[in-house]
Amino acid sequence: MSNTRSRGENVSPANEQVTASDARRSVAALLERGRTMTTPVLRAAVDRLAPPMNTVAAYHFGWIDATGRPADGSGGKAVRPALALLSAEVAGAEPEVGIPGAVAVELVHNFSLLHDDLMDGDEQRRHRDTVWKVHGPAQAILVGDALFALANELLLEQGTTDGGRATQRLTVATRKLIDGQAQDISFEHRERVTVEECLEMEGNKTGALIACACSIGAVLGGADDATADALERYGYHLGLAFQAVDDLLGIWGEPSVTGKQTWSDLRQRKKSLPVVAALAAEGPAAERLGELLAADAKNTEIGEFSEEEFANRAALIEEAGGREWTSQEARRQHATALEALNGVYMPEETRRNLLALADFVVVREK
Amino acid sequence: MSNTRSRGENVSPANEQVTASDARRSVAALLERGRTMTTPVLRAAVDRLAPPMNTVAAYHFGWIDATGRPADGSGGKAVRPALALLSAEVAGAEPEVGIPGAVAVELVHNFSLLHDDLMDGDEQRRHRDTVWKVHGPAQAILVGDALFALANELLLEQGTTDGGRATQRLTVATRKLIDGQAQDISFEHRERVTVEECLEMEGNKTGALIACACSIGAVLGGADDATADALERYGYHLGLAFQAVDDLLGIWGEPSVTGKQTWSDLRQRKKSLPVVAALAAEGPAAERLGELLAADAKNTEIGEFSEEEFANRAALIEEAGGREWTSQEARRQHATALEALNGVYMPEETRRNLLALADFVVVREK
Repeated sequence: MSNTRSRGENVSPANEQVTASDARRSVAALLERGRTMTTPVLRAAVDRLAPPMNTVAAYHFGWIDATGRPADGSGGKAVRPALALLSAEVAGAEPEVGIPGAVAVELVHNFSLLHDDLMDGDEQRRHRDTVWKVHGPAQAILVGDALFALANELLLEQGTTDGGRATQRLTVATRKLIDGQAQDISFEHRERVTVEECLEMEGNKTGALIACACSIGAVLGGADDATADALERYGYHLGLAFQAVDDLLGIWGEPSVTGKQTWSDLRQRKKSLPVVAALAAEGPAAERLGELLAADAKNTEIGEFSEEEFANRAALIEEAGGREWTSQEARRQHATALEALNGVYMPEETRRNLLALADFVVVREK
Repeated sequence: MSNTRSRGENVSPANEQVTASDARRSVAALLERGRTMTTPVLRAAVDRLAPPMNTVAAYHFGWIDATGRPADGSGGKAVRPALALLSAEVAGAEPEVGIPGAVAVELVHNFSLLHDDLMDGDEQRRHRDTVWKVHGPAQAILVGDALFALANELLLEQGTTDGGRATQRLTVATRKLIDGQAQDISFEHRERVTVEECLEMEGNKTGALIACACSIGAVLGGADDATADALERYGYHLGLAFQAVDDLLGIWGEPSVTGKQTWSDLRQRKKSLPVVAALAAEGPAAERLGELLAADAKNTEIGEFSEEEFANRAALIEEAGGREWTSQEARRQHATALEALNGVYMPEETRRNLLALADFVVVREK
């Protein structure tokens, strides 16, 4: 895939010689750095919540189990915090400068997970029961609200102009994220959704917040709006690549790795990319799939389907080309993301790290 | 009550001669001004929401009915917008300067109503079915989230330092509001709640946002933090007075006027001020009430109680002194609110209007 990497002018050809295992090590280190540097600040922020919200949030983040005992859940892949710290480095600032942004983005991301899991009726996340299952719907709503407010509070209490700019970008991203969830819900009640509509929804639901993670550190580090906008473009397309991979994992992912149920997205009748791409195709597999899904839409008992019935739908999606198209789309979005970095001046190592993270996003298995 | 009004030094004694009917007219005009000046901006903000959230929000605000036809619902008393515009005048600015603040506070207030109605299972608000009843729980969550985000968006897109300061105050108020709702929910599962705990909860749930309404216009008008803090104190205690009256109306209010069910708060086992004050009293009525409520707590069928059973509980609360204590508390908070204005320099007419609004809050019937 190295031919898709058209790097900035300040990158010398010698730096293209990064081996795959170097890159893997580099990504693991970046994710670990993001987690290590932001978790204490995130925990301190969550500690501000009044009981029982602090406990419910700690359960959600995987810091305690349902009985309140300490647990060592990682709270997810932490791609966003890693990106926010790199983003500060793009502006020539220390990664520390990005921490409030990293934490704020992580708080908004988890606000959306808490509410989405409840709205979608999802019972499992990260191999554990979701908050509404364990603590009830009211706590899922309330703690989600509290995390959202906390995100703005953290950024604004910096008391700086850049803190205000960062909050504004985060707010716009959050509104898009909510728009995306609204579109996603509405798709479940519609028989047909176009590929373009699906990409727009995913751009809102996933792209916008990853875009914000990629610019927020730079904004806090004093970058100008043009730089922040270019970083947002990188993040937006990275987010779409991320989501395309997520859509593949939502159907063909290994449950023991992803922490979700088998055929998770099919169970929820998600009109994800592989599904809409397959339905948009021509030929007998697309036709048969269309008939089956139209019948499913009238059937409220989809939860009672056998594994074979789901496997059959997944096979038809693949046969109609939905799986392959989505893989290619992930690669296309990956390439567009990298292009957005071309005109942005940044330290050599930061650029290498942003490229490595982009590569990771499209090859991950969970 | 005029002896509780120790006004600022720049108010001449001649201005004390305001008759009751003048004051009523003045309050009606202030509320009308708040509604007229803010509604177009509020509607334009709601129009930004993607479908179907714009429609769901329009239903919530009373602009359309459940079938989508235009309706003329007022969307509530609009005390907060009136206060926010007066707040701008305190800083010597035109009331228009307070509009983004008024709209932002109204958006946060309605975000909390949408979520609280769902969490509390309330089926009616302002004489109409609540959003979750009509459009389902997911839309109530989603549109609430969207209104919260929109509030910050409106304030931050001003792009001014004062817009950032206003957003920070609103964010802190929103976090308190969420804390208050968390406390309120937790009280329903507890047998005993002290009067102090109840006042703390109500200060968070109602006081904090009214406090913000009272300072946000001044902040947008460039007032210093000391002035904004004094206005928040006025608003905080005004909010507690408001809530004490609300608690009285929640038990003894006339359903055809309040738009709520009879004995609304008793049906929901709310540990509101009259209840906790009655339980804290001594004597046979308080004792009998305690026994009844303890038995109710074990009984999940409280919704099936007869009108007589609710009337009996209400009578015991009154006999134990809970009704009278709450009335007095409303007057105490009203007096403390007015005291907070003493040291604040402001135009004569603005002070008169803030006093008139405070009086209205404690005498209203809905």
